[in-house]
Amino acid sequence: MEAPVGVFDSGIGGLTVLAALLQALPHERFVYLGDTARLPYGTKSAHTVERYAVQAAQALMGRGVKSLVVACNTAASVGLDAVRAHSGAVPVIGVIEPGAEAACAATGSGHIMVIATEATVRGGAYERAILQRRADARVVQLPAQLLVALAEEGLVAGPVAAGIVSHYLGPVFAEDPPDTLVLGCTHFPTLAPTIRDVVGPQVRIVDSALTTAAAVREQLLGAGLARRAGAPSVQFIATDGAERFARVGSRFLGRAIDARRIELIDL
Amino acid sequence: MEAPVGVFDSGIGGLTVLAALLQALPHERFVYLGDTARLPYGTKSAHTVERYAVQAAQALMGRGVKSLVVACNTAASVGLDAVRAHSGAVPVIGVIEPGAEAACAATGSGHIMVIATEATVRGGAYERAILQRRADARVVQLPAQLLVALAEEGLVAGPVAAGIVSHYLGPVFAEDPPDTLVLGCTHFPTLAPTIRDVVGPQVRIVDSALTTAAAVREQLLGAGLARRAGAPSVQFIATDGAERFARVGSRFLGRAIDARRIELIDL
Repeated sequence: MEAPVGVFDSGIGGLTVLAALLQALPHERFVYLGDTARLPYGTKSAHTVERYAVQAAQALMGRGVKSLVVACNTAASVGLDAVRAHSGAVPVIGVIEPGAEAACAATGSGHIMVIATEATVRGGAYERAILQRRADARVVQLPAQLLVALAEEGLVAGPVAAGIVSHYLGPVFAEDPPDTLVLGCTHFPTLAPTIRDVVGPQVRIVDSALTTAAAVREQLLGAGLARRAGAPSVQFIATDGAERFARVGSRFLGRAIDARRIELIDL
Repeated sequence: MEAPVGVFDSGIGGLTVLAALLQALPHERFVYLGDTARLPYGTKSAHTVERYAVQAAQALMGRGVKSLVVACNTAASVGLDAVRAHSGAVPVIGVIEPGAEAACAATGSGHIMVIATEATVRGGAYERAILQRRADARVVQLPAQLLVALAEEGLVAGPVAAGIVSHYLGPVFAEDPPDTLVLGCTHFPTLAPTIRDVVGPQVRIVDSALTTAAAVREQLLGAGLARRAGAPSVQFIATDGAERFARVGSRFLGRAIDARRIELIDL
């Protein structure tokens, strides 16, 4: 019960998932590992992403975590089975399944769009997970790599951000609009208001951070492993660039991160 | 004389330098290594970039190169001394010194702007190299990380590209315009026409690919090592993602790259 929950991401995007976890599980201890030396995963091959994800999971297992959250959509999309094969009895929750669950709950027409990194789209895990739950769904996947850079730069509102979001989503939503849009990359929730302006008020926007946090909460409560009292804590671990992790990451987490308290490790 | 020239980059941006080298040295054999598994270097710490650059240089030394070109601005900015310490008698040419040389030749007023990655700006090598050549120069450095993603996405013209370039350069060139702009990242030459539209016709735009190629040519001729006849050739090596290397890289090189002929190695 006192063991920490491990959260793994390719970098800082997963801090949007950590923010949701801190809300859903206010007494829990977390260890967050960002593989900042090797980010982004989104443009790498499936083989490499799988290898990196297993190494990161092993590092967190070494910290005695009671549950493992794969907060990176790309890693969850192509590396979840490999991580599970290396995690023994520790349950592993990725962001894809809860995101697909939420999308199926949100959609009326079954016409769902997923925006994600190149690797997540190529892996096709969202499409498979949605079709498993709703066989008649019509899933359109779109790689939107520039939105990652935009979010990292903190340029999430204003004409530049709106221009890039329109570039990706404008044509689709003008011609044959899906009724549900899945933000299939942890960087994208920071752009949600701008995305909302482009797609209009009627589209349901699914942010898998919230549903993933709910899934982790349910799993811990079900297993009797949730911490019931005491202050939450987060141990940050990165593989490179503590200063940048703190500076950019604070925007994703929604609270300040102290660069001096980030532990640097090699994977 | 028959030995190849090694060209190293964090990924595919250095293919703009390779294109210039193929022009300047039409009989040469090249081995191009792109560290695509670990790109981008531009947001990583100096320590990590240095370590990666040395590993890449050693891989090329293992191929018996007669000259080593560090085509990545970030690696040249923070890792050139380390690479030279590991390259024995093989001469090492980075893109920074030729770029600074060209900037000093181009400027009238001495007011020079350098746009580059975060790590290149933080390393400050362009500023130092320019001030060594012209002590009264006024050098302004600006990190323009989004332009890298824009170039990789192939979105180099049109309103989205113009919007982002204006975001970075508009205010400076409206208020206190430098007379020379150094494209301090190998990705940026693909955006040159859009940059020209934003900064206006009077600004001198320095692309270090051309001056680097000239410097390599001079070094090979001076050492009597240039290949005088025969067809040029390029061996491509990458650390990940041959398909993406070929697809995106073809835009940077200006000619098609066959993914099946890219050798994949681990560093």
